[in-house]
Amino acid sequence: MTEHAIGVFDSGVGGLTVLKEIMRQLPGEELVYLGDTARVPYGTKSPATVLRYALEAADFLVGCRVKMLVVACNTASSVAVPALERRCSLPVVGVIEPGASRAAALTRNRRVGVIGTEGTIKSGAYTRAIQALDPRIEVFSTACPLFVPLAEEGWAEHPVALLTARDYLAPLIAQRIDTLVLGCTHYPLLKNTLRAVLGDAVELVDSAEETARLVATRLAGDRRFRQQSPQLPRYFVTDVPTRFEKVGGAFLGAPLLGVEQVELDKS
Amino acid sequence: MTEHAIGVFDSGVGGLTVLKEIMRQLPGEELVYLGDTARVPYGTKSPATVLRYALEAADFLVGCRVKMLVVACNTASSVAVPALERRCSLPVVGVIEPGASRAAALTRNRRVGVIGTEGTIKSGAYTRAIQALDPRIEVFSTACPLFVPLAEEGWAEHPVALLTARDYLAPLIAQRIDTLVLGCTHYPLLKNTLRAVLGDAVELVDSAEETARLVATRLAGDRRFRQQSPQLPRYFVTDVPTRFEKVGGAFLGAPLLGVEQVELDKS
Repeated sequence: MTEHAIGVFDSGVGGLTVLKEIMRQLPGEELVYLGDTARVPYGTKSPATVLRYALEAADFLVGCRVKMLVVACNTASSVAVPALERRCSLPVVGVIEPGASRAAALTRNRRVGVIGTEGTIKSGAYTRAIQALDPRIEVFSTACPLFVPLAEEGWAEHPVALLTARDYLAPLIAQRIDTLVLGCTHYPLLKNTLRAVLGDAVELVDSAEETARLVATRLAGDRRFRQQSPQLPRYFVTDVPTRFEKVGGAFLGAPLLGVEQVELDKS
Repeated sequence: MTEHAIGVFDSGVGGLTVLKEIMRQLPGEELVYLGDTARVPYGTKSPATVLRYALEAADFLVGCRVKMLVVACNTASSVAVPALERRCSLPVVGVIEPGASRAAALTRNRRVGVIGTEGTIKSGAYTRAIQALDPRIEVFSTACPLFVPLAEEGWAEHPVALLTARDYLAPLIAQRIDTLVLGCTHYPLLKNTLRAVLGDAVELVDSAEETARLVATRLAGDRRFRQQSPQLPRYFVTDVPTRFEKVGGAFLGAPLLGVEQVELDKS
C-alpha cells in the first residue's frame, strides 16, 4: 500500500495548485491527478450534482489503486468528503479543514473572511469548520464567481481583476477581517491583486500549502510514506486535453505532459 | 405533426433569449426548452464533447415528440447542426446562419466583427457562413470568455463589464468594423455596454431575432404553423432548477415557472 499513488481530483485545473504543493512537500510520492474538464465548473452547480460527480471521480481514482484521496476542489470538499470516506474505505483529505485550521490559528481579532465559489459559500462549510475550532471567531464570507474565469483568462493581474476584487472584498474590509481564506484553488493566482486591495495587514490563507501538510501528517500517521525518486504525476481529464494543458501550466508552474482523456459518466 | 412542439436547447440560460424571441414572433406555437445546466458551459469545451452533449440533448427533445429542433447555443450550433440533422430526421435550426446572413445584409464597408465563446470563435463557423454569402466580406473575430460570467453575475452594465468590453473590442474597433455579430446567446444582455464602447456607428446583430424569423420561415415552408392560444413553455434542466430559475429570469424577461430536472448522461 505504501507504494501506491496519492489520487488528487478537481473539477479542472484549479487543483493543480494543490498538486504542486504536494509535489514540493512530498517529492517521493507517486501522484495521479484527475480533472473533470468535461463538466467544469462545479462552483455554480447544486450539491447533489457535485456529489454525483465527486463520487464518479473517486471511483475512477480508486480504480487506479490509490492509497489516499485528496479532494483538491473547495466546492467538492464542501459537500462530498463524508460521502467519499464512506464509499472508498480510504483516507480522504479535503481542502476545507486545513484552510479553516490555519485561519483559526492566524487570526488575532477573531474576524475571518472567506471567499469562494457560490457552491462553497452557500454550503457554509468554512464557517462550520472555523467555528468548530473556536466558536468565538466571527466568519464573514462572500462568493466571488468572476475570479475563476479571470484566473483562467490569464487576467489575474489585469485592471479588470483589480476592479472586480475591490467590489467583492469591500464588505469584508468593512468588517475589519484580519485573515482571509482563499476558499477556491484558483485564487492563489490572484494573490497579488488581493494583496493590492487588502494591504499587508490581512493574512491570506492558501489551502494548498495547508492541505499538503495534512496529507503528509496523515501518511506519517498511517506509516504510508513513499521514499522513491521523484517522478512526474499521471494526468487524466474528461474532455480533450488541449485546453487543460494550455491553461493548467500557469497553475502548476510547469508544463503539463502526457495528459490522457477518460470518461466518467458512461459506467 | 403541426400540433407538436418546437424543441429549443442550450447549455444553460443563454438560449432563453432565443426562446423569448420565438414566443414573441410565434405566439401560437408550443415550446419545450432544455438547458444542460449540469454540464454548462459548452464554450470552453472541445468540439467532440460539445457534439456528444448536443446529441444527448437532441435525443431527449425528440423523445418529447418535437416537430423542429432549435439549437439556441452558438457553440453547439458551430459544431453540431449537420450531425443533428442526420440523427434526428427533423428540421434543425442553428443560430449561426441567421446571424451571419443578417450581418452580410447590414454591412456597408464589408468589415464584420464576430464575438463569441472560445469554442465558437475557434470553430470559424461565422467566418465560413458570412463568406459563403459574400466572399468579399472580411471577418474579424475575437473570443470574449468573461462576458458569459459577467452576464450571469448580473454585472452586464457594471464598470467591470465596461472595462472588459473595452479590452476585448479594441482590436475590432482598430479594424474599423461597421457590424458586430453577438455570437453568443448571453451577449444581448450586454448590449448597452457594447454600445457604450462601440458608439452608434456599429450595427449590433442579435442572432435571437433572426433565428426566430428563420424558424417561422421554415415552419411556413413545411406548412407546420400552429395557431393555438398561447401557453407557457415547458422547461427541463439537467441540474436542480434553483439557479436556472434565479438567473434565467433576466434572460427570458419573465419569471420561469415549472422547471423540471432530467438526466441526459445515464442512458
